[in-house]
Parts: sequence; structure tokens; C-alpha cells
Amino acid sequence: MKKQYAQLSSEYRLLLGPGPVEVSPRVLSAMSHPLYGHLDPNFFEIANESMELLRYVFQTKNALTLPMSGTGSAGMETVMVNLIEPGDKVIICVCGVFGERLRDAAGRFGAKVVSVEASMGEAIDPEKVREAFKAHKDIKLVAIVHAETSTGVKQPLEKISEIAKEYNALFVVDAVTSLGGVELKIDEWGIDACYSGTQKALSCPPGLSPVTFNDKAVEVIGNRKTKVSSWYFDLNMIKNYWGQERLYHHTAPINMVYGLREALLMVYEEGLTARFARHQLNSDAFVAGIEAMGLSMTVKNKEHRLPTLNAVNIPDGVNDALVRSFLLTKYGIEIGGGLGDFKGKAWRVGLMGESSKRNNVIQLLAALSDALLDQKFKVSVGQGIEAALAVYNGR
Amino acid sequence: MKKQYAQLSSEYRLLLGPGPVEVSPRVLSAMSHPLYGHLDPNFFEIANESMELLRYVFQTKNALTLPMSGTGSAGMETVMVNLIEPGDKVIICVCGVFGERLRDAAGRFGAKVVSVEASMGEAIDPEKVREAFKAHKDIKLVAIVHAETSTGVKQPLEKISEIAKEYNALFVVDAVTSLGGVELKIDEWGIDACYSGTQKALSCPPGLSPVTFNDKAVEVIGNRKTKVSSWYFDLNMIKNYWGQERLYHHTAPINMVYGLREALLMVYEEGLTARFARHQLNSDAFVAGIEAMGLSMTVKNKEHRLPTLNAVNIPDGVNDALVRSFLLTKYGIEIGGGLGDFKGKAWRVGLMGESSKRNNVIQLLAALSDALLDQKFKVSVGQGIEAALAVYNGR
Repeated sequence: MKKQYAQLSSEYRLLLGPGPVEVSPRVLSAMSHPLYGHLDPNFFEIANESMELLRYVFQTKNALTLPMSGTGSAGMETVMVNLIEPGDKVIICVCGVFGERLRDAAGRFGAKVVSVEASMGEAIDPEKVREAFKAHKDIKLVAIVHAETSTGVKQPLEKISEIAKEYNALFVVDAVTSLGGVELKIDEWGIDACYSGTQKALSCPPGLSPVTFNDKAVEVIGNRKTKVSSWYFDLNMIKNYWGQERLYHHTAPINMVYGLREALLMVYEEGLTARFARHQLNSDAFVAGIEAMGLSMTVKNKEHRLPTLNAVNIPDGVNDALVRSFLLTKYGIEIGGGLGDFKGKAWRVGLMGESSKRNNVIQLLAALSDALLDQKFKVSVGQGIEAALAVYNGR
Repeated sequence: MKKQYAQLSSEYRLLLGPGPVEVSPRVLSAMSHPLYGHLDPNFFEIANESMELLRYVFQTKNALTLPMSGTGSAGMETVMVNLIEPGDKVIICVCGVFGERLRDAAGRFGAKVVSVEASMGEAIDPEKVREAFKAHKDIKLVAIVHAETSTGVKQPLEKISEIAKEYNALFVVDAVTSLGGVELKIDEWGIDACYSGTQKALSCPPGLSPVTFNDKAVEVIGNRKTKVSSWYFDLNMIKNYWGQERLYHHTAPINMVYGLREALLMVYEEGLTARFARHQLNSDAFVAGIEAMGLSMTVKNKEHRLPTLNAVNIPDGVNDALVRSFLLTKYGIEIGGGLGDFKGKAWRVGLMGESSKRNNVIQLLAALSDALLDQKFKVSVGQGIEAALAVYNGR
């Protein structure tokens, strides 16, 4: 007897974790559109539109702007493996798990890594980057995380970009949890290479990683003395598929591109300014609610808080795992646990893309209050929601 | 004024190229299923079922059997980058573009490569592999393509596997265009590591790469002296997400996994034996039709012809590009052009998964006759179709 398999399960979920987040039915529907081949002229039109819309979202004119065929970390690998040659000296800024990941990757590709660090929950101090440049000659690039998903820190970028330029180094940015949800100006801020993911503020399923490189970065890649130490991520070949040449490299993930194009169209229709304001408002309301409930945010400096990823300190005596499973089983709500040093110490609440909604903020505050009361932690349900409503209504 | 973007275009297509191929509405529908998070217990159940079904299709008991988050070439990179350490000696068998790709990748990961070659359109001679082992000491692995998508060659594997074992080398197989369409017995044939793609005989959209490693290969990876020279493809971390530990590495491409699970279920329901027989029958009918039309197959040796990828020689005086654009514009039918040395010299007809159907064979033979007549190439439409029908009806 053959084992029987059931249909895909359909339990209700509201995704308010670090990603994937909620995806519009419009995007899901695009995912199930019949396929064109990856060399079909009709697909190339869809690919061109996707690149055009990515340039809009990245606020860039960079020709080399495309979705890599992998999740966000594939974008990280693409940027680092193409820009780094064995022996290169690089500065990696680390104030969380995703900075550590950049450092790990740089080392694997043969770089000599100089680390600039900050405590988890804090941003990198630009002066420390300057000190690193002073202490080490011939730095090829500085890499930094714009939105540290493990802590909820939003890193100011402009000052560090200026310092990188003073020392003639490339400026590389991880924008996985910021692109489409937080102001990010590739050209104006002098970012030479940047990568992101689709399952965060773009509100698309995971599976692609948008990347962008300016001419200076493209030149560095073109002038390498050694082959890129990856075949799958070698941009010298990949750019000839996404460019005019249309040379086959690997088979593009057709349906993922359909989904991304639709998700980007939704960003484009809403407009970046309105979208950033929406993300900020919902985060402000959430934070007001959390603080009114007597809880506190992990990132102390308000200027450095991400609206997309809101880290909340877990109060003493409250069991992390029990609260999250309460939310999941009683409400179908997913929030994220802590990562790295914050494991068991913080919850990570994603208010990104389709998940960044008034409805979601209100119901999460109520559900979280319920979960805390279940843990015998005293909290007033009303106070949290009232504080959030006050933000929405400008009271 | 903002540029206006149209809805996704919906021109009719029948995908009979080297992949992607036709995808069942059942699979497309699964692709658009609402998301669970990548750490949701419900997603882990779906992931477990996908691994279980992959083991069925690979005919293996290997615990480490999972879909990598990238297209087929990502599987190639995964296998090679994890098994190879700088300085390792490897034998790469090359008789087409995908063998060349393996050789290119092995070099990037620091291997000293010994090539064993055959002409395009021919299979590798096992005796040449033996000679390579005799000429070079301490070979760590032999890699070979089971189904050379660029030429349509089906490579017999068992003899070469035996030779690899005699010399205590790992046996690595590219099964991108064979898995699910052609007999492939991972355990019985002594294959230590194997990778495939989803958009070929599994009839799923592109975006994932199923891989499988036996205990011996896992041990080699676990005992590496150097870090894997890739972060994204490092199995020492990835196996702890797909295994019992459920440790976050990167965000799995949820909807692609939904699609793959559904596509694998369809393979499972049909059964491998029936599926292989269907692929063989449709290919036999197609070949009979092609030969009755006065054309010839690229692979001379019938034993070495793939039923999934049928390469047809382009007759003298016939314009490759015009024929393919005639098929695309008049019929919406996509077939593949030649790759590498066969560019302009061969067409590649994929009869895989949902594309491997009597209807498709018949209409392609008719449409191809039409295209050839349009090129003033004399061909009898009736003879090709009659010959195909004779195969179907055992006449």
C-alpha cells in the first residue's frame, strides 16, 4: 500500500515575523501564471520590466540591477564573491547576526577582514570606521547592514559612505529588511553595491534576491585578476543573460520573477513616499502600544529603530517559546524569536509590506496581551491598544 | 505621468524545449498557496514530505536528500563546492556543455582537473575513465552528466561507478535532465552524490535543485580541513535546517517547495515505472516521426539516446532561427536551439513530464513539417505522423 499524502494544509496564519511576511493575493496569483521559457521574447519583456521596477525601488539608474536566483543570502554571496579576490582587505561592520554572516562570507572568499563592531541593539559609529581606515592601508571595500534583522537596528549610511569615498573604497550595503519599507537611496547615498530579499518589505514570497551595482563596481568585477570563485553567482556571465545579449547562463526561476514583478508593481502604484510613511506610522503605533503595556523596545535610540523589524524585550519571568506558541495556536499569528545573543531575550515583530497594516498592529497588541496574561504577567490590554489608536488618530 | 504597466501577458505556449517544460495546473495552483513561515511546524511537515518524495524519485535511502534554494546549476555548485577542497584531484567527464560547466566549477573551487572527453553526441567510454585513474594517483571524485542536455546523450553509469569504487573515488552524477523521466538508481548504482533541477522531467517551475548525498559523501563533507568556499551552499549548515535541528540558515523559498511537493506527488501517483515507460514511448514515436520525415537524430547510438531530450539534426539549407520563430509565432510552440558546438546545427526537443504526451508529439511533428515546408524543405507531413501513430498503436 502506497502512503497517502494529504492536500497542502491551509491553517490560518498572519505572518508578523522577520519574513516571509504576508503576500497579496495579486502576487500569489502571478506566481501561478503559466510559464514562458527563459529565452522567450515575452519573458524578456517581463524581465526588463522587473529590472526597471527594481531600479525604481532602489532609487538608482544602475544598469546592473536584477534579481539573483536565490534567497536574500544569495544576494549577499553574489556581491561579496564578485567583488572580493583572495588577499583583498575589507572592512566588515558587525552589530548583529547579519553582519557576522557578511564577515563569515568575506573570509570564505579569501578576504583579510578588519571588523568594526557595535553592541547588539546599537548602530555602528562612523568614527570607528574612520579609525579602521587609518589603521589599515589599501582597504578595497566596506560592507555594512542597513537593516539588522537580528536586532531591529536601522544603520545611518551617509556618513560611512563619505568616509569610504575618502579612502577610495567600495561601499557595500545589505538592504534585505529595508528595501521597499525604509528610505534607501542607492545613487544619492553613494552605495556601490547593494542586495536585498523579496520576502521582507517587498511582500513577495522568498526565492529571489534583488541586487544592484554601479559602474564603478561593475568595472571592479570586470577587471578581476582571478575567476570569480563561484560559477552560479558569477556576474560576468549573469549580466549577459539579463542584458541585451540574452546569453543563457542558468534557467531563471520564471514564476518567482512573475511574483516579484507583481509585488514591485504594487510598490510602484503605492509610491515609495507613501509606502515609507505607512511603514513608519504602523511601527510608531505598535511601539506606542508596546510601551503603554509596560514593555520596552530592544533598540534604545529611537533614531536607530527600524519600522520594518520591531524588536521587543521579553520581560523577566516570561517564557519566550510559550508566548510564541500561544500566539501561533490561539491566533495563527507568527512573530519571530531572538537570534544570536538575543535568543530568548527579544521578540522580532515584522511590520513589512502587506503585514504593515493597522488591523495587524491592533490584533497583535491584543493577542500579545492575552499571551502575557496567560503567563501571569500583568498587563492592561486596553492601554496598549488605546496608545496605538492615539498614534493613528493623532490624539 | 507614471508609466503604465500591463497585466502579465498570456500568449499561448506549448513548452517542448530543454526546460522549463509544461507544468500541471495542480502544481501552479500549489505555487500560489498562502505562505507558512520557514520555521512554522506546518512548513516543516511539508518540507519533510518533500524530502520523502525526493527519496522516492531518486530511489535512495539517503538522509541528506533535499531541494537546494536555486536552479539546477545551484545543485551542481552545491555538490562540487562541498566535496572539493583546494588541491583535490578530480576526474570530470566532458561530452557537452554541462560537462564543461562541471569542469569550470571544479576549477573555481580549487580542484586539479583531469578531463575525460568524448565527442559531442557521444557518451563517455568507461575505459577512458579507467585510463585516467591509472595515469593519476589519488583521485578524490569522478563527476559525470547522466543526461547531457546539450546533445541528448544518455550516459550509462554503472560501469563507471564500478571503476570509481575500484579506485576508492566518489561518484558524482548530474541528473538534471533525467530525474523523474529516465531510470536512475542512486543506491543500486552506487552514486555518492547527485543533483537535478525541477523544471525538467519533474515538471515543476524552475527555482529549486534536488540533491542527494550518501553517508560516505556526508562524511567527506564533515571531515573537510577547510571551510566550504561558499556560505549560501554550505551543507554543514543547510543540513541542520532540513534535519531534525531546524536551525535557521537562509529563508527557504516556501512557494517553490509547495510546487515541488505537488509535482513530486504527481510522479509518485503515476509511479516511476509507468512514468519512464511513458517518456520512452513518446520519444520513440517522435523519433519514428522525425526519421520518417527524412530528418535524423543527433545521437547516432540508439542506446545512448535520452527520451527526455531529443536532439534533431537541422537539415542543410534550413534556417534554424526562422524555423524556431515560425513554430513560436504560428503555433506558440517552443523548442530549443543548439548549445555550444551544436548551435545552429541541432534542435533540442524536450518531451519531459507534462510535455511528454501523445498530443504534443503529433502536433509538433505537424508544426515542424509546416515550418520546414515554409523553408522550401521537402517533407511529407503525413509520413511523419503516420510513423508516430504506428509506434503508439504498435503497428
